[in-house]
Amino acid sequence: MDLTSNNTALGLLTDLYELTMLQAYWHEGMNDTATFSLFYREMPAQRNVILACGQEYAARLVSQLHFPSRQVNRLKALELFEDGFLQWLQDFRFSGDIHCLPEGTPVFPQEPLLEITAPLMEAQLLESLLMNVVHLETVLASKALRMVLAADGRPVVDFGMRRMHGSDAALRGVRAYRAAGLAGTSNVLGGLQHGLPLRGTMAHSYIQAHDSEMAALRTYARLYPGTTLLVDTYDSRAGVEKVIRLVRDEGLDVGAIRLDSGDLSQQAKDARRQLDAAGLQPIRILVSGGLDEYRIAGLLADGAPIDGFGVGTSMGASSDAPTLDLAYKLTDYADHPRLKNSPGKQLYPGRKQVWRQTDGQGHYQQDRITAREEPADGEPLLQPVIRDGEPCRDAPDLSITRDNVARHLEKLPNVLLSLDPAQSGYPVAFSERLHTLRETVLRELEG
Amino acid sequence: MDLTSNNTALGLLTDLYELTMLQAYWHEGMNDTATFSLFYREMPAQRNVILACGQEYAARLVSQLHFPSRQVNRLKALELFEDGFLQWLQDFRFSGDIHCLPEGTPVFPQEPLLEITAPLMEAQLLESLLMNVVHLETVLASKALRMVLAADGRPVVDFGMRRMHGSDAALRGVRAYRAAGLAGTSNVLGGLQHGLPLRGTMAHSYIQAHDSEMAALRTYARLYPGTTLLVDTYDSRAGVEKVIRLVRDEGLDVGAIRLDSGDLSQQAKDARRQLDAAGLQPIRILVSGGLDEYRIAGLLADGAPIDGFGVGTSMGASSDAPTLDLAYKLTDYADHPRLKNSPGKQLYPGRKQVWRQTDGQGHYQQDRITAREEPADGEPLLQPVIRDGEPCRDAPDLSITRDNVARHLEKLPNVLLSLDPAQSGYPVAFSERLHTLRETVLRELEG
Repeated sequence: MDLTSNNTALGLLTDLYELTMLQAYWHEGMNDTATFSLFYREMPAQRNVILACGQEYAARLVSQLHFPSRQVNRLKALELFEDGFLQWLQDFRFSGDIHCLPEGTPVFPQEPLLEITAPLMEAQLLESLLMNVVHLETVLASKALRMVLAADGRPVVDFGMRRMHGSDAALRGVRAYRAAGLAGTSNVLGGLQHGLPLRGTMAHSYIQAHDSEMAALRTYARLYPGTTLLVDTYDSRAGVEKVIRLVRDEGLDVGAIRLDSGDLSQQAKDARRQLDAAGLQPIRILVSGGLDEYRIAGLLADGAPIDGFGVGTSMGASSDAPTLDLAYKLTDYADHPRLKNSPGKQLYPGRKQVWRQTDGQGHYQQDRITAREEPADGEPLLQPVIRDGEPCRDAPDLSITRDNVARHLEKLPNVLLSLDPAQSGYPVAFSERLHTLRETVLRELEG
Repeated sequence: MDLTSNNTALGLLTDLYELTMLQAYWHEGMNDTATFSLFYREMPAQRNVILACGQEYAARLVSQLHFPSRQVNRLKALELFEDGFLQWLQDFRFSGDIHCLPEGTPVFPQEPLLEITAPLMEAQLLESLLMNVVHLETVLASKALRMVLAADGRPVVDFGMRRMHGSDAALRGVRAYRAAGLAGTSNVLGGLQHGLPLRGTMAHSYIQAHDSEMAALRTYARLYPGTTLLVDTYDSRAGVEKVIRLVRDEGLDVGAIRLDSGDLSQQAKDARRQLDAAGLQPIRILVSGGLDEYRIAGLLADGAPIDGFGVGTSMGASSDAPTLDLAYKLTDYADHPRLKNSPGKQLYPGRKQVWRQTDGQGHYQQDRITAREEPADGEPLLQPVIRDGEPCRDAPDLSITRDNVARHLEKLPNVLLSLDPAQSGYPVAFSERLHTLRETVLRELEG
């Protein structure tokens, strides 16, 4: 839809220093081949798994990125850039290579989600935008996965768009949610764009706008056979009784009831008893209202007879871990491995590959990070997506992404799928060759 | 710019239930005048003041909102909506009235940021989009204000776009930042769109890409007189010495140095001593790297000689309070005040006005919420912005918004401008008439 095509004009969604550095490189004639790696440094305390999402989308966006003359003219007005450099920007088309983890791959600290190899100026230009694009979906998919895990097979539906951080978060968030295994979304435009089924019930305001709760519920059930009716606007027990009357006495087709406030566990138990006593076992009970993974798990541990969850605010902003320390670092320039010597930050130079290694039972037992062309056991995860500026594999279908998530989760240690912090993270080792390379570069820096 | 105009086609950025409720209203012929109020219920524990931002922008967006036929056709394919209703949607133009707090007004729990009075279907349709738009800027401005307060007069610059939640957050975030009093942004497109000065230095990768740190710094200083040089890629003390040589021995013009990692306080003290000993008192020291309001305050309390702050991640996601419990509630329909009877949620029916009341010294002492046309002392805050679907006052200029913030902050109790949670919030009282109206509506609900 229009928002996607428009994104290709987002080149100026960047930090000013990218452009001033670029002009310096342009002056110095520094435009040899560079490799930058996009990775995160530390697992957030509230997460055991991060799902890499958005990196293939970002790579494709980059391959189409351009700077409309209108935007270049606005830069010119800053009186910071020379005409020759602005012309370079206006002519910009990405010409490099991008390797990515397939969308939805669980990714651990230090592992590249994406590596870009391109003339230095091109690769540098893309830093801020790439990070912004990948960060959003990776953060949201990783949070949503926890809802899916907590719900233990019951459907989880996204109700969060109203408190997500703007329209882009709300729209691409749905993409991340589909990857993470959500069953549906209330977000119409997001669901249509990304193929996640649309779900919805009714708001309390709908009931309030009517003089009678009964009339409001009746109209809805007539209009939308199999719909979900919200029963707790005034009193949930009385609301459930009204639903029973509509179904038994008036023959209407109601699929589910929704509870949205108060003691959800107790209300769900009461409602289930009322419905069962009326012979309405097939009517499901959905709950919403301030839910997160811990409340979902708590409700189920409490034996609440809940058939599905609508989750909004805390998932939509990934409230307990709203950011990830994603970094984009130069690791190679002009065929020399590069490294920033930061105390406490263990960075490794050069182009890399990530190998996911399996034990005899088919379970993942560790990842091994090697130099790009170094052989190793296991499944090589980084795949070429853009070559010489052009996509070299099909755009990721979200159903394939979703399958990719499921396939990886099945083989990961179970402890990582718990909501509680794992005692130790998934093992990630660097190859001897990378260790040696790192030592060599560090010695050169000191020399 | 293009993103703004495109937003007027964001009508389907809504929750499905808005559309299904609308179709039900359409069927029932329920389209009398309704009033909805946009407010938040509770001050987040980590905030003393919330700045209302985005509501006038949202009101103007609503006045231009439309549903392109392409979008309506996608809805049709869901087989959930009748042709007559879809035609209504395609013909939709907002025809109602919107009152708003002026952008940048400090707003307290229960106070409407925005009230909309319109035919029920129109007002209901706008719920999710209005909330998404206003929530973002209000959350981000309220967080940014804390940086400004902590920095105590020193400039604060936004470095956060790379880890903000998508492009819309990054772009409209700059709007909120300008309102909150930030001095600049690194975000090129955001700064250009919203008139916040662009600021930037250089990245560690720029230094790394060169074989010599000295050569990298020299090129930059030559190209950008008065620029800021990043000195801590390898060793900050040695980096500062290089800057001193460039200025003293080579006569280059350097405005500031930037420190981005490690012990910022100690490094700033060391750097200040080095620079002063070299007679370079005018060179300023800027710091960045994992800053938030508490670290800014801590650095200043520690006596670190810092002249400005670059703040990114924690401000960009409002990490400690990434969401606000913004709600959009029906308060009146067909000239009858309405109310949802939620235990523990003190809602008041009807159209309202908020009066900010001043003591004898010109300090704000309390807010009084009244019925819309009820007289009261003080400054009435809600102003008409859209009348009969058309803007009825000038679009808010961000410099006026910024002045509005400053004017209100000057008169608010000082305790609310502290980073620590205030013992008690700002007093907000409801008028007797509203209390009485509430009791009447509650009695009717029970009857």
